[in-house]
Amino acid sequence: MTESSAVKKTTIRRATIKDVPYILGFIKELAEYEHEPDKVLCTEEMLEKTIFGSVSYAKVLIAQTEEGIPAGFALYFYNYSTWNGKPGIYLEDLYVQPKYRGSSYGSALLYALAQELVDIDGGRLEWSVLKWNTPSIEFYKRLGAVPMDEWQTMRVDGAQIAEMAKRSPGILE
Amino acid sequence: MTESSAVKKTTIRRATIKDVPYILGFIKELAEYEHEPDKVLCTEEMLEKTIFGSVSYAKVLIAQTEEGIPAGFALYFYNYSTWNGKPGIYLEDLYVQPKYRGSSYGSALLYALAQELVDIDGGRLEWSVLKWNTPSIEFYKRLGAVPMDEWQTMRVDGAQIAEMAKRSPGILE
Repeated sequence: MTESSAVKKTTIRRATIKDVPYILGFIKELAEYEHEPDKVLCTEEMLEKTIFGSVSYAKVLIAQTEEGIPAGFALYFYNYSTWNGKPGIYLEDLYVQPKYRGSSYGSALLYALAQELVDIDGGRLEWSVLKWNTPSIEFYKRLGAVPMDEWQTMRVDGAQIAEMAKRSPGILE
Repeated sequence: MTESSAVKKTTIRRATIKDVPYILGFIKELAEYEHEPDKVLCTEEMLEKTIFGSVSYAKVLIAQTEEGIPAGFALYFYNYSTWNGKPGIYLEDLYVQPKYRGSSYGSALLYALAQELVDIDGGRLEWSVLKWNTPSIEFYKRLGAVPMDEWQTMRVDGAQIAEMAKRSPGILE
């Protein structure tokens, strides 16, 4: 193999509905890495409906090898900053399979998201990381990311949502 | 005034482009409350373009008095959970003017968002609060919200985005 043909080229492409089995696989592998394998209630049918259906709530980029094999993914959506008066990108999941790590697939996905952020005239690229995940936090800091230490995320889910919804005064359209 | 006519009714309605001056006013008042008045780069023109333009990156609900005066607002967008395989709602800003507090405008806005979450078959309602803002955190906990203590939000913005975007391998459509 000559030197030039040994140069690996990372390809980042938009996912299609045919990638759903890969996407669900990545989601499950990431949840295992996060020590939360039982939290994944998502199914192929749910991804098909919520991402590749008539309404799409998230976007997916696939990082693939030169041979066209999916090595990892980024699942994201647009958020919004009222301080900036601009949209941003929130990266919900970033995952590269262990055997493909160290080949810049992860940073290539982040760079592609930065490019998309510029394209939409957005202001921020944000994501969350588990506090114990020091290797990832260090990787992100090297890329120039800053931890939002002053802010606490709050969440309501499950039965409490139904309880709150019962008290809604309604929304006038 | 009879007892029945004294009963105040909170109306929650979707914002229109005519509400932009109110929305920007609320954004600025909230930033002052958060001790960050200089962070608001947003203008009326930016809100018109990014929320009421051809592409809309956020949704806005207005809470108004019986007399039809806007008392507060909720600005939000849909996010996505790969564990749930469902969309969710992220509440970017919730604000009620001081003179209207204690009249349940804030909780009415949250209840209306819970209703919308049910309507879209969503899983979670999330938002962020400044860690020093104990009164708000207590208010949210009483509503059933849980702090996401294990997660750290990371952000890249400003010049670093342009630096990252330069390294993008491109996105194949």
